[in-house]
Amino acid sequence: MGKRGLLERLDAGEVVIGDGGFVFEMEKRGYVKAGPWTPEVVVEHPEAVRGLHREFLRAGSDVMQAFTFYASDDKLSHRGNEAGSKFTCRQINDAACRLAHEVAAEGDALVAGGISQTPSYLHGLGKKITQEEFKRQVDVFVENKADFLIAEYFEHIEEMEWAIESLASSGLPVCATMCIGPEGDLHGVSAGQCAVRMARAGAHAVGVNCHFDPFVSLEAVRLMKEALAEAGLKAHLMVQPLALWTPDVKKQGFIDQPEFPFALEPRILTRWEMHRYAREAYDLGVRYIGGCCMFQSYHIRAVAEELREERGKLPAAHEKHELWGGGLLLHTKPWVRARASKEYWSQLSPATGRPYSAAMSRPEGGKM
Amino acid sequence: MGKRGLLERLDAGEVVIGDGGFVFEMEKRGYVKAGPWTPEVVVEHPEAVRGLHREFLRAGSDVMQAFTFYASDDKLSHRGNEAGSKFTCRQINDAACRLAHEVAAEGDALVAGGISQTPSYLHGLGKKITQEEFKRQVDVFVENKADFLIAEYFEHIEEMEWAIESLASSGLPVCATMCIGPEGDLHGVSAGQCAVRMARAGAHAVGVNCHFDPFVSLEAVRLMKEALAEAGLKAHLMVQPLALWTPDVKKQGFIDQPEFPFALEPRILTRWEMHRYAREAYDLGVRYIGGCCMFQSYHIRAVAEELREERGKLPAAHEKHELWGGGLLLHTKPWVRARASKEYWSQLSPATGRPYSAAMSRPEGGKM
Amino acid sequence: MGKRGLLERLDAGEVVIGDGGFVFEMEKRGYVKAGPWTPEVVVEHPEAVRGLHREFLRAGSDVMQAFTFYASDDKLSHRGNEAGSKFTCRQINDAACRLAHEVAAEGDALVAGGISQTPSYLHGLGKKITQEEFKRQVDVFVENKADFLIAEYFEHIEEMEWAIESLASSGLPVCATMCIGPEGDLHGVSAGQCAVRMARAGAHAVGVNCHFDPFVSLEAVRLMKEALAEAGLKAHLMVQPLALWTPDVKKQGFIDQPEFPFALEPRILTRWEMHRYAREAYDLGVRYIGGCCMFQSYHIRAVAEELREERGKLPAAHEKHELWGGGLLLHTKPWVRARASKEYWSQLSPATGRPYSAAMSRPEGGKM
Amino acid sequence: MGKRGLLERLDAGEVVIGDGGFVFEMEKRGYVKAGPWTPEVVVEHPEAVRGLHREFLRAGSDVMQAFTFYASDDKLSHRGNEAGSKFTCRQINDAACRLAHEVAAEGDALVAGGISQTPSYLHGLGKKITQEEFKRQVDVFVENKADFLIAEYFEHIEEMEWAIESLASSGLPVCATMCIGPEGDLHGVSAGQCAVRMARAGAHAVGVNCHFDPFVSLEAVRLMKEALAEAGLKAHLMVQPLALWTPDVKKQGFIDQPEFPFALEPRILTRWEMHRYAREAYDLGVRYIGGCCMFQSYHIRAVAEELREERGKLPAAHEKHELWGGGLLLHTKPWVRARASKEYWSQLSPATGRPYSAAMSRPEGGKM
Repeated sequence: MGKRGLLERLDAGEVVIGDGGFVFEMEKRGYVKAGPWTPEVVVEHPEAVRGLHREFLRAGSDVMQAFTFYASDDKLSHRGNEAGSKFTCRQINDAACRLAHEVAAEGDALVAGGISQTPSYLHGLGKKITQEEFKRQVDVFVENKADFLIAEYFEHIEEMEWAIESLASSGLPVCATMCIGPEGDLHGVSAGQCAVRMARAGAHAVGVNCHFDPFVSLEAVRLMKEALAEAGLKAHLMVQPLALWTPDVKKQGFIDQPEFPFALEPRILTRWEMHRYAREAYDLGVRYIGGCCMFQSYHIRAVAEELREERGKLPAAHEKHELWGGGLLLHTKPWVRARASKEYWSQLSPATGRPYSAAMSRPEGGKM
Repeated sequence: MGKRGLLERLDAGEVVIGDGGFVFEMEKRGYVKAGPWTPEVVVEHPEAVRGLHREFLRAGSDVMQAFTFYASDDKLSHRGNEAGSKFTCRQINDAACRLAHEVAAEGDALVAGGISQTPSYLHGLGKKITQEEFKRQVDVFVENKADFLIAEYFEHIEEMEWAIESLASSGLPVCATMCIGPEGDLHGVSAGQCAVRMARAGAHAVGVNCHFDPFVSLEAVRLMKEALAEAGLKAHLMVQPLALWTPDVKKQGFIDQPEFPFALEPRILTRWEMHRYAREAYDLGVRYIGGCCMFQSYHIRAVAEELREERGKLPAAHEKHELWGGGLLLHTKPWVRARASKEYWSQLSPATGRPYSAAMSRPEGGKM
Repeated sequence: MGKRGLLERLDAGEVVIGDGGFVFEMEKRGYVKAGPWTPEVVVEHPEAVRGLHREFLRAGSDVMQAFTFYASDDKLSHRGNEAGSKFTCRQINDAACRLAHEVAAEGDALVAGGISQTPSYLHGLGKKITQEEFKRQVDVFVENKADFLIAEYFEHIEEMEWAIESLASSGLPVCATMCIGPEGDLHGVSAGQCAVRMARAGAHAVGVNCHFDPFVSLEAVRLMKEALAEAGLKAHLMVQPLALWTPDVKKQGFIDQPEFPFALEPRILTRWEMHRYAREAYDLGVRYIGGCCMFQSYHIRAVAEELREERGKLPAAHEKHELWGGGLLLHTKPWVRARASKEYWSQLSPATGRPYSAAMSRPEGGKM
Repeated sequence: MGKRGLLERLDAGEVVIGDGGFVFEMEKRGYVKAGPWTPEVVVEHPEAVRGLHREFLRAGSDVMQAFTFYASDDKLSHRGNEAGSKFTCRQINDAACRLAHEVAAEGDALVAGGISQTPSYLHGLGKKITQEEFKRQVDVFVENKADFLIAEYFEHIEEMEWAIESLASSGLPVCATMCIGPEGDLHGVSAGQCAVRMARAGAHAVGVNCHFDPFVSLEAVRLMKEALAEAGLKAHLMVQPLALWTPDVKKQGFIDQPEFPFALEPRILTRWEMHRYAREAYDLGVRYIGGCCMFQSYHIRAVAEELREERGKLPAAHEKHELWGGGLLLHTKPWVRARASKEYWSQLSPATGRPYSAAMSRPEGGKM
């Protein structure tokens, strides 16, 4: 018997846990270059990619997203990036799908293929050319037997509609997430209107990803949910936010903050903050709950642990983790043992260790 | 011709770059359990350990330390830890050494074996019993052809002296680092006196590791250097601090802070702060420069990049990293491109994104 | 020729600068009791009240508001407050008006009488009884020749409308400010709707006072301005905010923050932040610009200095103040002299000196 | 029977409460000019000075220090300061003493005259000329029947010794406080050595004032106490610190911080922090406990309230203040009533309201 598909799971009301964004983590591990952010590592060091997929699988991810971010031919050779001269886009995307499948088979995970916004749209090349770009990527995913497709990281609802159309033509289930907050897309289309248009364009699950912290993102999803209800539309809800706090971030997302992308460490969420994220997402009705940039596998494990009762299971990596810091009960110091509880960790406001840092920064760039 | 040994390198004035502590990173990746913190992963998931060694090697580490932390028979079976019933200490330590050698051979790295403070000492079992425990571990390292040995994470200078004695009997080079700050050890022995006693006990390199941030640690090393000079002793200087800011931490180290060990994220140093650490360590005369808990490979890469001229080389993982954020020059937004410089990143005081957090917390536990 | 009245000034487009709230400052000086907050000091220590009026007059205030806050018979004897047994409300209000007139006559200032929300309204005693309470206070102000009247510190627009009606019957100019932010009043009436209803009820100037910081308050005034324009109504705009930062304060205002009222010091605005406030208020079209709790006279002086060109004059106390810290040019240390400029002070984000404090706190009380 | 003198009180083990520095408060009130900081207000607006003295008297101050800061002939006419052309130093100092006496007579307070470090010393004019300058000021205080004298705000112990000599020749009791922290004076003389030399020079009470926060200052006094004991010397201990937090301030004091003098608001201590200061000072054995820059009268009242049992009395202004916020018990909201306790206020770490501010700043000026 084959594994159950995405819609089968979501339609049954199950929680589907996503994985985390790969580029930031692979950059820190020395396999992806910040700037181009291209995934040639899938060919150069496949064992490193396999390792990261496996961490997420063990942490509870139900989805292995093939690591093809920014892997279109034009981007690979963009601006003197060497990757383009060494590998074709096809080589990379095939390898990425293969790795995702390999690790997915170690568990019960689904393989997803994803596409993102394009230079073609931004340069005004029009619907036909933009969709051709989407189509080339979709073909690879279909050929490589992806279980479903994701349109993610879109800032303009119009381009998102074109993308959904392209994905839907594959016959596979389609997820669609924009990188927007409660203020809506870059053209001033509200979060609610975006949701309605994504659902009408054919997306089975809609929501947001990247650019904002989990709680800002959930606020945008809440607006989406209300708008869908008002429009009488049905779509699953999905969220894959940053693992970074962004209380100070404006409409353009964390890219405009002065700390992007190399000084974001103080903003990283703790596992306990992820428990809260998982609970609030679940309570809002979101059933596809994952992560984007800066998510590490232990963040996903926290999501899986928080929702262990709803899911009726704990992830494999839980064998190396006690709930709510229970492992500290073995500590020699009584005051460290006293930390082994949900009450302790869920109430702690962690010190930053940074007396020369402000809590917030002001976005740069202004009106663009 | 074999690879050049530790003392050969240090005596020639070369910089030897260490790696980072494995337990925190492997815990986050789902392979080590917080609480027992034992390294049975070397048997259970060797590819994961190999992967982490390789990241550090590519980042510039000249040392692969066998992942044997807390792997003594008594600790493995301590307090109902399952690891003890599945594997013997010998199995684990053999596997750890084998993995370290495998990856070391992919480059020019040395393999180190390490020992730490013991329950035997704390329970007052005396010199003989304590040294027997050290001896059992040393034997495994010698048998597995470690290149040199490290006595690290000692809070009492007396036990450290016993450890150095045990290590020195192997005939291998001995490094000795205490987890102390400028205030000295738990019995009130000053940092300077500790250094003198470690050197007199036979250590070739002395310094500090863990418990404090890089700059607090360097302050302790500075006191050590002065005391050694005053005593007319020669020893190489070594430092392997936390990758966490600890301006608020008192004598007992970061363990007493309320955030330990599961809410330390905001304290993680950026790569640029590691540049400063590397520079200050070098200028102080420290030549064995590494890391401890929370160091990831990109932190080590930053050390290697900062000292590229002194070392005459850049690490393998530099192929995926431009100096000082140079990769941002390709960004579409002019204000992000403007971040591609040393001036920008070395002066930035990153916002924490945490308006509900204080900068400092008060240590718990008081007088113990 | 008598002095020019409030409407004469506002209709001519002039800026009218208010004073600051007296209760917090007089409490710190030892003359008002926190809790009852009653102004019996006007009888007990008139020279202290005269002194504070004079500071504001010298700082640029065009208005001396009689210090009658909470001086109604029921409040004076409320809950065992001794003030009620010693003085009648009439004694206190007469004295307060006299002191305001005395100091106003030392310059060109107007005398204002003010009324605030009542227990009668909150206890549901209805319009008739509530307005009788207002009437008794208005009679004293009229008898004591106040130049105009202010209805301030109202949280419910309905009660505010009744108050305006009572004040308007005096024939004097009426100002009306609610203590609301951009979210509107406690019954969910929006800021814009409040403005429209205040103007329709007969107020000549409308706006907000207390409860929020200057910039949050101006945001509420902006909404009021837009709603007035949309409704085709004309009314002067007025703002008298806290001299405290309240980025974390929710609808109920600063009273719900854990720091109220005795640990608010870190939130006090600098004079340079008041320059910005004055400029933004002016640019928004607000012409009655004053302050409420925690304003000291140097805050008002900063407002007067910022608007010196628009007003064509500087306040008396400017004789003891150089613009933008110019007095520092005399300092012996070059780095202190370098602070003597608008560029320096307007860009400085002052350190808090409080590493154990968070930037924000969470309001207590929730739904009430 | 005349009032009891300073030494009579201190020798009997009584607490003597000082007042606060006048220049910062009078600057904020519009009567003193930042830069010259000269006290011509004693002639120009005597009622304002009388008002501030009275606030401190009512708050519990046992000392009215004549407001003569920086009132020497050379300083008054320094650098084009107009004050010098309008009034002679003699006029100002006479007026200042008269005002202090007037208010002191309203209670049981002592009148003190104070001198500070001189340009003469800094310019190397030698002991004779420097002491002539001191002598001229002392003569005025003696003539005006000051009860005792204070040498305060000295950064160099040598000049302080000269000053004590000059004061001692008057036959009046002499207090001596340097503006130093635990690191000692500007020439590297330790705090302990300074104390010993001040006592040997003839000071009856020694300690520190200005430049640092209460707790840093008490740390310096602790070192002084130990050194005096070791030297077998007897002297009363005295402390008059800033009412500002200075965890980040280096040897040169708060003047070097970028916020000095116009953006220090966030650092102001709460009244509850003053309770802790008073208690720690008392427990250390300090019996002359007062304040310097940024102290307002309610800070002094907090000192008097904390030490009410030791002193057997409460200050006059206590009639308008309940201990530990007791007045809040009358509040309508239950969560505000819950704040009416010592436990609440003594444990609160107040939010700063400043998410764009860091906790600490770096001193400017470096080595000077």
